[in-house]
Amino acid sequence: MNFSSDTAAPAHPALLAALNEANAGPAPSYGADRWVEAARRGLEDMFETELDVWLVSSGTAANALALGAMCPPTMSILCHAEAHIERDERGAPEFFTGGAKLSLLPGDHAKIDVAALKARLAANNPDFVHETPLRVMSLSNLTENGAAYSAAEISERSAMAKAAGLLVHLDGARFANAVASSGASPAEMSWRAGVDVMSFGATKNGALGCEAILLFGEARSLAEELRARAKRAGHMPPKMRFLGAQMAAYLEGGLWLDLAGRANAAAKRLSELFTSRAGGRIVHPVDGNEVFVELPDAVVAKLKAAGASFYPWLGGSFRFVCSWATGADEIDAVGRVLG
Amino acid sequence: MNFSSDTAAPAHPALLAALNEANAGPAPSYGADRWVEAARRGLEDMFETELDVWLVSSGTAANALALGAMCPPTMSILCHAEAHIERDERGAPEFFTGGAKLSLLPGDHAKIDVAALKARLAANNPDFVHETPLRVMSLSNLTENGAAYSAAEISERSAMAKAAGLLVHLDGARFANAVASSGASPAEMSWRAGVDVMSFGATKNGALGCEAILLFGEARSLAEELRARAKRAGHMPPKMRFLGAQMAAYLEGGLWLDLAGRANAAAKRLSELFTSRAGGRIVHPVDGNEVFVELPDAVVAKLKAAGASFYPWLGGSFRFVCSWATGADEIDAVGRVLG
Amino acid sequence: MNFSSDTAAPAHPALLAALNEANAGPAPSYGADRWVEAARRGLEDMFETELDVWLVSSGTAANALALGAMCPPTMSILCHAEAHIERDERGAPEFFTGGAKLSLLPGDHAKIDVAALKARLAANNPDFVHETPLRVMSLSNLTENGAAYSAAEISERSAMAKAAGLLVHLDGARFANAVASSGASPAEMSWRAGVDVMSFGATKNGALGCEAILLFGEARSLAEELRARAKRAGHMPPKMRFLGAQMAAYLEGGLWLDLAGRANAAAKRLSELFTSRAGGRIVHPVDGNEVFVELPDAVVAKLKAAGASFYPWLGGSFRFVCSWATGADEIDAVGRVLG
Amino acid sequence: MNFSSDTAAPAHPALLAALNEANAGPAPSYGADRWVEAARRGLEDMFETELDVWLVSSGTAANALALGAMCPPTMSILCHAEAHIERDERGAPEFFTGGAKLSLLPGDHAKIDVAALKARLAANNPDFVHETPLRVMSLSNLTENGAAYSAAEISERSAMAKAAGLLVHLDGARFANAVASSGASPAEMSWRAGVDVMSFGATKNGALGCEAILLFGEARSLAEELRARAKRAGHMPPKMRFLGAQMAAYLEGGLWLDLAGRANAAAKRLSELFTSRAGGRIVHPVDGNEVFVELPDAVVAKLKAAGASFYPWLGGSFRFVCSWATGADEIDAVGRVLG
Repeated sequence: MNFSSDTAAPAHPALLAALNEANAGPAPSYGADRWVEAARRGLEDMFETELDVWLVSSGTAANALALGAMCPPTMSILCHAEAHIERDERGAPEFFTGGAKLSLLPGDHAKIDVAALKARLAANNPDFVHETPLRVMSLSNLTENGAAYSAAEISERSAMAKAAGLLVHLDGARFANAVASSGASPAEMSWRAGVDVMSFGATKNGALGCEAILLFGEARSLAEELRARAKRAGHMPPKMRFLGAQMAAYLEGGLWLDLAGRANAAAKRLSELFTSRAGGRIVHPVDGNEVFVELPDAVVAKLKAAGASFYPWLGGSFRFVCSWATGADEIDAVGRVLG
Repeated sequence: MNFSSDTAAPAHPALLAALNEANAGPAPSYGADRWVEAARRGLEDMFETELDVWLVSSGTAANALALGAMCPPTMSILCHAEAHIERDERGAPEFFTGGAKLSLLPGDHAKIDVAALKARLAANNPDFVHETPLRVMSLSNLTENGAAYSAAEISERSAMAKAAGLLVHLDGARFANAVASSGASPAEMSWRAGVDVMSFGATKNGALGCEAILLFGEARSLAEELRARAKRAGHMPPKMRFLGAQMAAYLEGGLWLDLAGRANAAAKRLSELFTSRAGGRIVHPVDGNEVFVELPDAVVAKLKAAGASFYPWLGGSFRFVCSWATGADEIDAVGRVLG
Repeated sequence: MNFSSDTAAPAHPALLAALNEANAGPAPSYGADRWVEAARRGLEDMFETELDVWLVSSGTAANALALGAMCPPTMSILCHAEAHIERDERGAPEFFTGGAKLSLLPGDHAKIDVAALKARLAANNPDFVHETPLRVMSLSNLTENGAAYSAAEISERSAMAKAAGLLVHLDGARFANAVASSGASPAEMSWRAGVDVMSFGATKNGALGCEAILLFGEARSLAEELRARAKRAGHMPPKMRFLGAQMAAYLEGGLWLDLAGRANAAAKRLSELFTSRAGGRIVHPVDGNEVFVELPDAVVAKLKAAGASFYPWLGGSFRFVCSWATGADEIDAVGRVLG
Repeated sequence: MNFSSDTAAPAHPALLAALNEANAGPAPSYGADRWVEAARRGLEDMFETELDVWLVSSGTAANALALGAMCPPTMSILCHAEAHIERDERGAPEFFTGGAKLSLLPGDHAKIDVAALKARLAANNPDFVHETPLRVMSLSNLTENGAAYSAAEISERSAMAKAAGLLVHLDGARFANAVASSGASPAEMSWRAGVDVMSFGATKNGALGCEAILLFGEARSLAEELRARAKRAGHMPPKMRFLGAQMAAYLEGGLWLDLAGRANAAAKRLSELFTSRAGGRIVHPVDGNEVFVELPDAVVAKLKAAGASFYPWLGGSFRFVCSWATGADEIDAVGRVLG
């Protein structure tokens, strides 16, 4: 009953097998190997477009490197007030951009509110030298509250941002979960909806440690800059074949979608248990693999006594995270605790 | 006959086995797992002292994070003109320090020349606000030219630096090779010789991608700062157990020393072949796993024709790098090519 | 009728006379001259304490250099959402700190709300590596809305911040105006109320361009760091005697207080005209030299037609700024326009 | 007999008079005033071309802001090993660029050696991600050793740099002195010789504190970026009229050239005294207002005893700096001391 985080889960055996397979003999260093190339081709297939890619070992690195290539130090990045890049990355965006500013917006379930976005964009004046004008809008899908933007919701916000001259970034640490619940394609949920650059996560969904920074369309012109910044940040490990192999195996046969589907289904079952048997109040849509729920104290106490792990969240709720590895037996065990 | 780099080599099977072993069930994220703890204990045993450690996936990250914690942006880092931190890290030390300056010194075989060091330290004036005073001296062992500092050579330079108020950093990407050839202990080659902070590499010597930043003695006070900077730089991947497991397996039973010894022996054999059979002139001491050699054009041509891979180096020589995985058959094959 | 800004005003003749006086013959460069020393002594007299001082030519430089010396790049600065450091300095605090984050709080009249401060401090966890913990609280007096904190109001907030381990910074670009309206002494309005470091402005109140960064008490240990950062930022002009002479003349005989009193009195008269004759609604306390007022459209049109200059402000109000140079004739002229 | 530095000299009375003249009534803030505009027009006349300009109060600010706008953090700036930007600005170029690297070249009299430049440019590989490729070449005229590049010497180096894809920066803190001694026009000594961006100093030659950053030709596209960076660095003081007035007065009637000529003539006389009467050996060409000379100990002692101020320099020589304010009486006094 470990619902502390999807990062507490182990890696999927297929990815470990891929590491073993990639470990045969010498290979070119720094990304010139065939596993990185296989990952790139797999991502192009998945996203139905040509793209540039850089693989890193953490989501913070993926987001911050991307934002560093997108936003000069004299400008600002628009994001939700609860976004991971604002609250959970120890100032990595500020570090990688050289001191750009994050400008925060409200919105239910950590989705950027459209009216607030409109007002903020209207107040933006790129020519007013005293302020720090907007250059990038960053969305997260899943959001920090486990909700998923639909393709239409992304498109709406992207169109507004682009009309104001901004680039669009997507933090897709849990993009697989968002796609799995949406029924839309990866392309529809990203570049077709206006996303220029995105982080596509694998670590929370079966990898040992692998995230892809994807550059779409005109943003592909940032590829060389991104590569130089990755090197400079220590995110060009010599034996990149082991990142390439993870990503290639993650994509192979749609494993990424299958694993996300499993995690989402576990979360759905869990949320149903909370509402049907425990008097729980679900506080954010369970669009992916996370359940945010208010629970009676007695229920919390029983779960803890039974060894379940989960974290308190903002506003008195609790966060339960399922992963690809969450077993039916774990959900059943919760059910037994709830009685 | 791949002598392009020790980073082209695969990982040692014991480290892959350790990843498999570490992949059982959930584990705490961000370094609170038992494999990271095992790595720390293993390092304390190896270095015969209490220490703090942070694990990262690239040597550039290890060096730059360490230097970032050691040197404020207003000060300078003394290093050899050919040091990796100066020539091969795309300005990572400048990035992680917030713009500290590297101050370059000459010296044979990429060892810092003692007379030049003395003169530079004498010219340093911490109170002169216009210049950028020295704060750190960084040594590399092996050096960029494959030479090894002895414990006494490190001590001599460290004592001079410390007398001038500097901290001492050691880039030990190939520290195992230096220890293997020296006969001295890891402690004698590091903190007992005055090193405050070091990078201890595993990637070039059998890991998939793992380097340890080690803090000794009073420098342990930098541990929290280092951890915050690692997070901020995207070098706190969630599933750190996979870094911990690599390092722990690398230390287990002295594997690190055994592998370095193999690589060193291969390099020794290779250098002997070049001098005895090919008219080669060895230009730097073969203290570790690298051979820098001037070769007749005909020999170079023959080796290339036979499929050997190696790089031209500064000044017209060539660099051949052996690794733990360099087989006796590869050296034999070179011998056959040389005739 | 120029109410656009107190920075539109000329310099007071006494300061120009001081420049002429300081222009006699050679003088040591970079702050070692007798005019800078006179400024320091004058500031110690004014603030009734020993202190360290650095003179700069802009308020942005004063704030950002101070914050850079106070806050490491891995931490955060607490300020009001409308603070000058957040809204009007083009990311200077982020630049000078190397990417620290500004954490924003609400509050009427741009004073930090005490309840919000309490909640934010309670949520701060210096040991949680993923967030960006608080290191500094920055207050502005006058606030961006022209209101003045009393000494007690500063003390209350400072005590809370210090209990949470923070340092306290004061943006005193209009500190003279705040002191003039408060009746309290400079010491009571600063270090006795818990301020560690402050910007003390002169430019808006009679200087050509001169602001002092003051370090009090234990914060004096930052003096060398501040000096190095000033040099590094181009804020150590060679002929510093011309900054020293301005500040010394500004302090001489309490000129600073006299000039601030004149500006405050002009603002008071102006606000009374708006309320008594123009149907204006004063939206923030007129504690200093600024009037924020909602005015009927017809009044706005009449003022503009008569050549008065002033800016629209947030929320539909208008800002009128008086300065030491605002003449009684200008206020009278407004009165005639209002009829 | 103050030969310590040209920054020890007072300001020329015409510039103080200009401050007085500019102090009449209100004026727009932040550079929108008529004195800044007059300075811009004066600079266009002087340089016989359209240009963009930003005025700052220190040479370090001028150089570092320019380099920050020209060089991204991932690239390098080529300069002489003794350049002011390397040795005397406390890492300001690193700060303003976000961590770009300075790459040092040798050369007599602090002029970049052409052969060394050729070799360094040949070794530059913009596509090699591990190194830090060159982006800017920075020349100084006068050099740090008081020598002047001729227009042809600048052109030769600029052509080489531009052929390699670099931009050309000129540190012209003593540009007036170089022009005065060359007989060439300002245009010939700058943009016609390939200079893209330059610092044009006034502080050392009669200003209170004023330097102009000039953008020529295609580099004018950097103007907005430069302005934003100036604001962000605290180098957009509100009452910019006082910078504009200084520069306009400095240009008026060719005052800049007249003052530089005076300083140069004084240095010439001084150097002749040293060689003819004191057994001095001039170690660098006296092309401007500085004399670098080796002197017998007895002469040094006599000069000091007589109250002359001057600094020891690298290699055992002494530096004597004349300024616009150096009187014939001061040179005569030296003559009397030398006997």
